[in-house]
Amino acid sequence: MEIRNNTYTLRNCRYIVNPTGEIRKSENIVIQNGIIKSVGRELEGDEIDCSDYIVIPGLVNSHTHSPMTVLRGYYDDAELEDWLNKIWEFEKTKFTKELMKIGSELAILEMLGNGTTAFVDMYFNPDQVAELAEKYKIRAFAGYTFLDSLFDPYEIDKKQRRLKKNEYFVPIINVHSIYAVSENTLKIAKQLAEELQTWIHIHVSETRKELYTIKKRNGLFPVEYLAKLGLVNQKLQMVHLGWVASWEIETIKRNGSTVTYCPTSNMKLATGGSFPFKEMLKNGINITLGTDGTASNNSLDMFQEMKIGVLLQRQMYWNVETKAIDLFQSSTINGYRLLGIKGGLIKEGYVGDLVLIDSHFVYPLSQDKLFSHLVYYVDGRYVSKVIVNGIIHDKDNILRILAEKVKLLENSYLDSTNP
Amino acid sequence: MEIRNNTYTLRNCRYIVNPTGEIRKSENIVIQNGIIKSVGRELEGDEIDCSDYIVIPGLVNSHTHSPMTVLRGYYDDAELEDWLNKIWEFEKTKFTKELMKIGSELAILEMLGNGTTAFVDMYFNPDQVAELAEKYKIRAFAGYTFLDSLFDPYEIDKKQRRLKKNEYFVPIINVHSIYAVSENTLKIAKQLAEELQTWIHIHVSETRKELYTIKKRNGLFPVEYLAKLGLVNQKLQMVHLGWVASWEIETIKRNGSTVTYCPTSNMKLATGGSFPFKEMLKNGINITLGTDGTASNNSLDMFQEMKIGVLLQRQMYWNVETKAIDLFQSSTINGYRLLGIKGGLIKEGYVGDLVLIDSHFVYPLSQDKLFSHLVYYVDGRYVSKVIVNGIIHDKDNILRILAEKVKLLENSYLDSTNP
Repeated sequence: MEIRNNTYTLRNCRYIVNPTGEIRKSENIVIQNGIIKSVGRELEGDEIDCSDYIVIPGLVNSHTHSPMTVLRGYYDDAELEDWLNKIWEFEKTKFTKELMKIGSELAILEMLGNGTTAFVDMYFNPDQVAELAEKYKIRAFAGYTFLDSLFDPYEIDKKQRRLKKNEYFVPIINVHSIYAVSENTLKIAKQLAEELQTWIHIHVSETRKELYTIKKRNGLFPVEYLAKLGLVNQKLQMVHLGWVASWEIETIKRNGSTVTYCPTSNMKLATGGSFPFKEMLKNGINITLGTDGTASNNSLDMFQEMKIGVLLQRQMYWNVETKAIDLFQSSTINGYRLLGIKGGLIKEGYVGDLVLIDSHFVYPLSQDKLFSHLVYYVDGRYVSKVIVNGIIHDKDNILRILAEKVKLLENSYLDSTNP
Repeated sequence: MEIRNNTYTLRNCRYIVNPTGEIRKSENIVIQNGIIKSVGRELEGDEIDCSDYIVIPGLVNSHTHSPMTVLRGYYDDAELEDWLNKIWEFEKTKFTKELMKIGSELAILEMLGNGTTAFVDMYFNPDQVAELAEKYKIRAFAGYTFLDSLFDPYEIDKKQRRLKKNEYFVPIINVHSIYAVSENTLKIAKQLAEELQTWIHIHVSETRKELYTIKKRNGLFPVEYLAKLGLVNQKLQMVHLGWVASWEIETIKRNGSTVTYCPTSNMKLATGGSFPFKEMLKNGINITLGTDGTASNNSLDMFQEMKIGVLLQRQMYWNVETKAIDLFQSSTINGYRLLGIKGGLIKEGYVGDLVLIDSHFVYPLSQDKLFSHLVYYVDGRYVSKVIVNGIIHDKDNILRILAEKVKLLENSYLDSTNP
């Protein structure tokens, strides 16, 4: 990565695109100590010519499982339950901590290269993720995962309390799902989130079977059940919700929780149902977007995820109510809202987390087509530079390091990633 | 592009992937006069080191509208009927032949860069497409389009008869749709296809409204109606079929027509329904895949189309019956079957139409993960070289020319592509 002086200017940006719909042409962005100091005519410090770039806020991947990058293509053509059993078997028997770290490292490099500046991660190695986030300068949010078949919840509680925050890493509480933990575990997680002042990140209502299971076990639908336990509040992030009921959307709205849409993963695992994007939007709920892990996507490209996100909504509703800009908001400003960081907007006082897109092949390029191009046409291949906390990552450099790490994986670990 | 001696060898290919499921490791491909002479240990002529490449057959984009590349992002957030009216207005008033040619040129360069070696095109400038196909060495199949609101069918008939075949171009008969032409026009098209010994390429059963319209007008469903007129035979390619009825699938099977699936376009235009991939497959129907035009996709990347193609099927059927390899077959061997060319397989005697994929970032790479990677992870960004008829196109060179053409468009024509 490239570290500039504390103050520098992205000069003459071809376009500056904000998720509010605002587009500026040929203006400058001054960044000081990692924060946007001004957007307009000012120039200060080193100057970087941006006349070929479309500049957008950094993309937040709100749900992934970074170590699983080494499991890309591991077991593809299966529905969720079958798939999950296969994955859990690998995790129990073969997934060493060393290999998990390589997976997270590869995922971080891929995400940076595709314009992701922050990610929310659910896995078993948050200590390593913290170390890697600081090493590569990407914002990571991760924690140990409550998952009763693999771990004792009291152990997770203890380890979680020892997990340290750093400039690029914030611990969060991961709970796999309601069906994979006991009520007691949920209570431990709730207590822990309150004490550590962080949020709970959990898979909810992913399949129809999950609904039946929870209803049978607890007499309530998943979101209702979480609400009964007092978990549905501003410190809850529910992922998937392909099978959420209309009255549960009311509950989410009332309690201010964040929801995360993972269209590719849901489709690939044939979970049926579909995330009710427009109902969530109408209710003013904070909708974020995630790629999910590479074993169920299998990409880590938020641009592709935005596109597939619109496509799935249009397919399910037979109308075009969901628009490109809605997904762009989910991936930027809404993501930063979840993270509790003043980001996702290119505006004075917001964090210097930005993506510079090479505009040479984005055509025909005019102001009114920008959101369309960003969601339906552009993908990670057009990302030239990624800025996190004011630190500039050059794409070529990211790819060079990624290639080295891939070689390392292939020389040492490949055999263990075959079923 | 690069023209090698008549005989050359792709030496030591990391993997050679065939749509039959066959995968070969570290073997050579000898190409002579545009035809695959051998696959195995033989070496002949110039040698090209392919130890970093995954080699697959060329991809056939079985349905697009190449000139519309200049209309990318023109009018996105609309359902089909509204969208079509907007596009037709542009076509009537602003779309000059000069601009159409630039659009086709840009599309050809993009498609080549993404691994497409042949495409089926519906538009108004097949003479220009023929010229460009020969210039750039890509296989093109196009014709004038029967569309009664814009053109006199007798004029189209006349122009079509003057259209000349060349080494890279074959004339086909384009009919926009049943609803956009009269029964008389359909009869002219049928007669013409028989005389010129080519096939008819037509949009069929794209929306529910189309079904109602045709049923009301003719008392029959679209495929039934075409069958009544004697058009459903081996020389018919029906595109979309999101609303085809089960008994119509029987008719298609009995008569040996080809069908084309365009998942992204159908989803983006919110046409509802869905192409019944697994029923078509079970019935042994030749299923091909297309991106449709850039105004309704907005990419020209067949790798992304394969992925979205699987995802949509899994969403609609709530199961994983449709697999990566099914879409890979649709894009390769089935495409060449439609074209009437011995291609789509890497085998002695088949055409030298191939794609060389840089394997550095395709990981973890092992033989059993290849189809998964090709469909769920790889996209056009990883294409390094494309071979058509034995002629080698280098990706960097394609992108260099594409950038020049984009500049030309931006300097001269951009204003006319805004609504």
